[in-house]
Amino acid sequence: MSKPYVVGIDIGGTNTVFGIVDARGIVLASSSIKTAKHSNITDYIDELHHELSKLIDESGAHDKIHGIGIGAPNANYFTGTIEDGVNLPWPTPIPLAQLVSEKFGIPVAITNDANAAAIGEMTYGAARGLKDFIMITLGTGVGSGIVINGQLVYGHDGFAGELGHMIVKRNNGRLCGCGRTGCLEAYCSATGVARTAREFLEIRNDDSLLRNIPVDEITSKDVYDAAVAGDRLAKDIFDYTGEILGAALADMTVFSAPEAFILFGGLAKSGDLLIKPVKNSMEKNMLGIWKNKVKILPSELKEADAAVLGASALGWEAKFPSVTTVPTASSTPIN
Amino acid sequence: MSKPYVVGIDIGGTNTVFGIVDARGIVLASSSIKTAKHSNITDYIDELHHELSKLIDESGAHDKIHGIGIGAPNANYFTGTIEDGVNLPWPTPIPLAQLVSEKFGIPVAITNDANAAAIGEMTYGAARGLKDFIMITLGTGVGSGIVINGQLVYGHDGFAGELGHMIVKRNNGRLCGCGRTGCLEAYCSATGVARTAREFLEIRNDDSLLRNIPVDEITSKDVYDAAVAGDRLAKDIFDYTGEILGAALADMTVFSAPEAFILFGGLAKSGDLLIKPVKNSMEKNMLGIWKNKVKILPSELKEADAAVLGASALGWEAKFPSVTTVPTASSTPIN
Repeated sequence: MSKPYVVGIDIGGTNTVFGIVDARGIVLASSSIKTAKHSNITDYIDELHHELSKLIDESGAHDKIHGIGIGAPNANYFTGTIEDGVNLPWPTPIPLAQLVSEKFGIPVAITNDANAAAIGEMTYGAARGLKDFIMITLGTGVGSGIVINGQLVYGHDGFAGELGHMIVKRNNGRLCGCGRTGCLEAYCSATGVARTAREFLEIRNDDSLLRNIPVDEITSKDVYDAAVAGDRLAKDIFDYTGEILGAALADMTVFSAPEAFILFGGLAKSGDLLIKPVKNSMEKNMLGIWKNKVKILPSELKEADAAVLGASALGWEAKFPSVTTVPTASSTPIN
Repeated sequence: MSKPYVVGIDIGGTNTVFGIVDARGIVLASSSIKTAKHSNITDYIDELHHELSKLIDESGAHDKIHGIGIGAPNANYFTGTIEDGVNLPWPTPIPLAQLVSEKFGIPVAITNDANAAAIGEMTYGAARGLKDFIMITLGTGVGSGIVINGQLVYGHDGFAGELGHMIVKRNNGRLCGCGRTGCLEAYCSATGVARTAREFLEIRNDDSLLRNIPVDEITSKDVYDAAVAGDRLAKDIFDYTGEILGAALADMTVFSAPEAFILFGGLAKSGDLLIKPVKNSMEKNMLGIWKNKVKILPSELKEADAAVLGASALGWEAKFPSVTTVPTASSTPIN
């Protein structure tokens, strides 16, 4: 391999984290800048270029970067743009791949954060060797990256894999950020867990450690801490969350018959508190042919590095644009 | 192309239909035998060979058959076998691809009937030129064939695409043939429509042409005929069916972002009676980014030829077995 390194950039609403990664998934160096510091995208990319160039020089990686991979909300792999409807300070659509590629003189590939996580897991993590798996990211929202026959599923328009917006409750479901009701994300994200906590505390009368916290300030972390301390109500919240997520995983299985689901993100670190009810519910709801055949695995990416690793893995497939056929791109926001 | 023809064989519980097809999808000749006539699979294949050889000779296609494609229930593309749990007169698993290939000296590929229909549609029908679409077959059951990036989705074990067993009603759903409750198939198959008719007739008091038919003998065709004749209750049955199917299509879209759904099978021929409520419900339930972007198309395969055409299209990719890696095969029945 003539150029042994890739750069991974993870653009979040608050921070942009980036790092230099080798073929084995070792992060040579990483750093970050504030995403929202510049109201002008050009200034933002200038600062990114400045900081990243420093990092590259310090790492002796000058002229050794094969490609840059970027994970960003609503980023479209096909068009290289960030589409509308995201919590970023710049007008959309943003031709991000082009802007970064021109600035650095290095090929750039972009996709959304959950897809980047799936590619990272396949390249460096729990999905090494798996050709059919589904990555579920349990964070502020619920994201997903679907891999079928070794390839990430982008779909016709580049936006496939929005499994957080599967409907899990058809009647009287919770309002979701997408404007519809009953989405998986409204129940099984970190915010969904906090909503369940508020519901349970209102409906139920039993004691709970969670009653010591102002109800509007309860986070999924609080629920986790209470459950670990043996709190019944907190444990029931995890059971409820796991029940819904497990049933959804069984439904996803009839689609692509994956070998495994890989759970990633803050909530996924709750371990057996979440995994056990998820597994039980998945098996209970599973179509006969797949009973006891589909694995649920925790992510193996080190959390501190995960975002950068995931994005960087995409860097290996980055190419300078040629005359490409661009499928119909959506310009309608998710939210 | 040195060998310009393929053979398609569709094995159903009652009839086995087969034909010789050219690269443009013209059926040169076709015929059929009774599937259940022989209790011994060898005798069945002997008769199939005898009848098919006659057909091949009559068509001047001797030594011109590129491959044989077979569509059959529970047929596994990876292993070449028909797995357990099917309504066929022979003990399973049946190493069908091997048996037929050895008998004819021609390479054989097999898959289930819905997947064969999807490949047929992609090769000769409404999906020509589409790289991302989902075929939904509305027959006695609800089957599906999913195409992503131009490739049929087989999944880890060869059984992917069982969308008839997506759960569309989580509580108090109808019992499905798979033993679970609330599956799409229990509502949107021909038998599902007949069940809806019986439910509606029991719950409602209004007049209906369907009340002239003994309630246990009502078929989806009766419902169609009544709806065409202007019967309100029959139309409401189609609306109810379409509402459920449309919501399911919206949920499938978040998975693979297809360009189109293609509806196939008896019920799909109901035209606007079904398509209109399906389309309305799909759009009503659709996540914002895909609103008014996903097409619903009727199959373009001529019904009489569809099964043979679908199976034959698979014949183009048939190869003699080499040393292949066989993924974990399931031997557990669907039903």
